[in-house]
Amino acid sequence: MDIRQRIKIGVIGGASPEKKWLSVAFEVGTFIAKNNGVLVCGGLGGIMESAAKGAKQAGGLTVGILPGNLPQDANSFIDIAMATGLGYTRNSLVAMNSDTLIAINGEYGTLSEIAFGIIYGKKVIGIGTWDIKGVQTVSSAEEAVKLALLS
Amino acid sequence: MDIRQRIKIGVIGGASPEKKWLSVAFEVGTFIAKNNGVLVCGGLGGIMESAAKGAKQAGGLTVGILPGNLPQDANSFIDIAMATGLGYTRNSLVAMNSDTLIAINGEYGTLSEIAFGIIYGKKVIGIGTWDIKGVQTVSSAEEAVKLALLS
Amino acid sequence: MDIRQRIKIGVIGGASPEKKWLSVAFEVGTFIAKNNGVLVCGGLGGIMESAAKGAKQAGGLTVGILPGNLPQDANSFIDIAMATGLGYTRNSLVAMNSDTLIAINGEYGTLSEIAFGIIYGKKVIGIGTWDIKGVQTVSSAEEAVKLALLS
Amino acid sequence: MDIRQRIKIGVIGGASPEKKWLSVAFEVGTFIAKNNGVLVCGGLGGIMESAAKGAKQAGGLTVGILPGNLPQDANSFIDIAMATGLGYTRNSLVAMNSDTLIAINGEYGTLSEIAFGIIYGKKVIGIGTWDIKGVQTVSSAEEAVKLALLS
Repeated sequence: MDIRQRIKIGVIGGASPEKKWLSVAFEVGTFIAKNNGVLVCGGLGGIMESAAKGAKQAGGLTVGILPGNLPQDANSFIDIAMATGLGYTRNSLVAMNSDTLIAINGEYGTLSEIAFGIIYGKKVIGIGTWDIKGVQTVSSAEEAVKLALLS
Repeated sequence: MDIRQRIKIGVIGGASPEKKWLSVAFEVGTFIAKNNGVLVCGGLGGIMESAAKGAKQAGGLTVGILPGNLPQDANSFIDIAMATGLGYTRNSLVAMNSDTLIAINGEYGTLSEIAFGIIYGKKVIGIGTWDIKGVQTVSSAEEAVKLALLS
Repeated sequence: MDIRQRIKIGVIGGASPEKKWLSVAFEVGTFIAKNNGVLVCGGLGGIMESAAKGAKQAGGLTVGILPGNLPQDANSFIDIAMATGLGYTRNSLVAMNSDTLIAINGEYGTLSEIAFGIIYGKKVIGIGTWDIKGVQTVSSAEEAVKLALLS
Repeated sequence: MDIRQRIKIGVIGGASPEKKWLSVAFEVGTFIAKNNGVLVCGGLGGIMESAAKGAKQAGGLTVGILPGNLPQDANSFIDIAMATGLGYTRNSLVAMNSDTLIAINGEYGTLSEIAFGIIYGKKVIGIGTWDIKGVQTVSSAEEAVKLALLS
């Protein structure tokens, strides 16, 4: 199947969350891959790495949009590492390049990505994250990916 | 007084708010100028324009950080118009170039600027805006600028 | 073979070149794919599209780093479309995300990408392009890709 | 006189040029200020600092568009320090925010700025710099600023 036809699901969340959120991210990545989605994320550690690991281990394709200017900074589960050199400003590009966003836990970087997601007209789904108008809250990884696939 | 020594206060908010918020923005701009602050904003209409108008009419200096690539797109109360060509992604630069942010009302663009402000370690003060942990809520323009000047 | 292990070769050049350069770009794309390289380009028409077409028809993988904020603006031979919303400023990211650059003909956009390529320490190979110190000039598509693969 | 009505002249060049180019940059900055222009530059050392010093000592206004995310990184002759966090990618913004560019000596960063200047339709004047089609070569600081003021 043509890569361009596959839904791109952005998984956003912090680099140092509590362990339970890492498991959720791994499961989200797994479900994305099993449903033939492309996983988009910020390419670094924590939620980004767990989601990418889940997706890769299920045979998926992963894209990491990095703050730094070296593609090799991406975590080892990223297939397509896109360096931006934009620092935190790259959060906008994570939202821009996803068809739908799933926010897992997260702090202010995640909040900026939620905001950009809504600005760009993307569906934003949340698990244990900011309670912001416009975010559709779910309570499990499976539910999140199912809702993402509806878009 | 050296421009570099003056505090830079970013005023953030939407392009089409209710009228009452425009008055607040105008007052905030006025107080910033009277206290020798430099007003930083997104350079366009609504809250940005009212705050800049308030600052200019009180003899202040105004900086507008624009989404487009033409400095002439800035509203007519902007002294220093900085084009970025970054689109909404420029919201990050508004936060980056302010010592303190005052959010007035606002929608998702403002939310992204609040998030970046906190990421960059800036004090964020809010009037009638998002109720986000880390935002210091006040109820008047004067109070907002007083709190901003403490930083 | 792991995508991350494959060399990423950026092909840069204008959107409206003379026809002969389109053939060269197509050949360059073909050779890149046959040698298991990933083709990186600006994602739009002209040289970018011909190179991507050559790569796709030879079974390769293509990445397009776009000036606009819509991934769907990429030409139809791009697998991974990365929107940036940066306008021409995205030229820097094309250079940043390539291991080596091949410039084919081109005008000022190409010149900016050559400059960034050298700034970022990448090998820059040229065919019928700017005669700039630091660009290694070759006279055929095959020679260009052979030289690129040496890096 | 309204700041917005004053011509903005970008002075571009390297951070570590030979001494003779620093003198030229200082003179260019001086002439810009004496002719009521606003000096725009990259905000760091070398040509940027000498030009800004010349402009400040002649009573001018200076703008520095920085690669990093800290306005305080600007050299001490910059009035308006604009942080971008874009790294070398900010070179595009220096060109975007100048009405005319004067390139003094310079290496590949300067080359990228010349390219963006021409892309954005700006007059580009050169002294001892890249010999690129579209750059108007002059041989003195005074001549450069005179030509810049004609635009």
